Amino acid sequence: MKAKVYVTIKQNVLDPQGNAVQGALHTMGFDEVGKVRIGKYLEIDLGTNDRAHAEERLAAMCEKLLANTVVEDYRYELED
Amino acid sequence: MKAKVYVTIKQNVLDPQGNAVQGALHTMGFDEVGKVRIGKYLEIDLGTNDRAHAEERLAAMCEKLLANTVVEDYRYELED
Repeated sequence: MKAKVYVTIKQNVLDPQGNAVQGALHTMGFDEVGKVRIGKYLEIDLGTNDRAHAEERLAAMCEKLLANTVVEDYRYELED
Repeated sequence: MKAKVYVTIKQNVLDPQGNAVQGALHTMGFDEVGKVRIGKYLEIDLGTNDRAHAEERLAAMCEKLLANTVVEDYRYELED
């Protein structure tokens, strides 16, 4: 079973990387571009086929390592 | 119109960041975890409501700045 995990910076937290990309896009002529927010996208092979177990383990991984829940949100999708 | 962009490392390219996370998960007791691949996830405010135009501009941004197409793939979704 595989998981796709999306880790994003919370809405009220500054995203300097996103601001830098926005500035670069403007410099390159993409002036119409508004806010840019950058997060992480992870694909993980969970090594189990038990969906409930996989979900429980994955939530623990996100809380403990993959996301810094002080400033980041996470969500995930499970795939068979 | 907003876009979600996913930038991932090509399948045959090494992902040291993913390997490091896999190792860390094993160390933390998540021994069942297999391959981990890490990419970027971007949310971009495109500043236009013309879907065809937005898609054309977004593809150009991906090719020129957001993804390194030598070693990365990208895909995107447009949202009204």
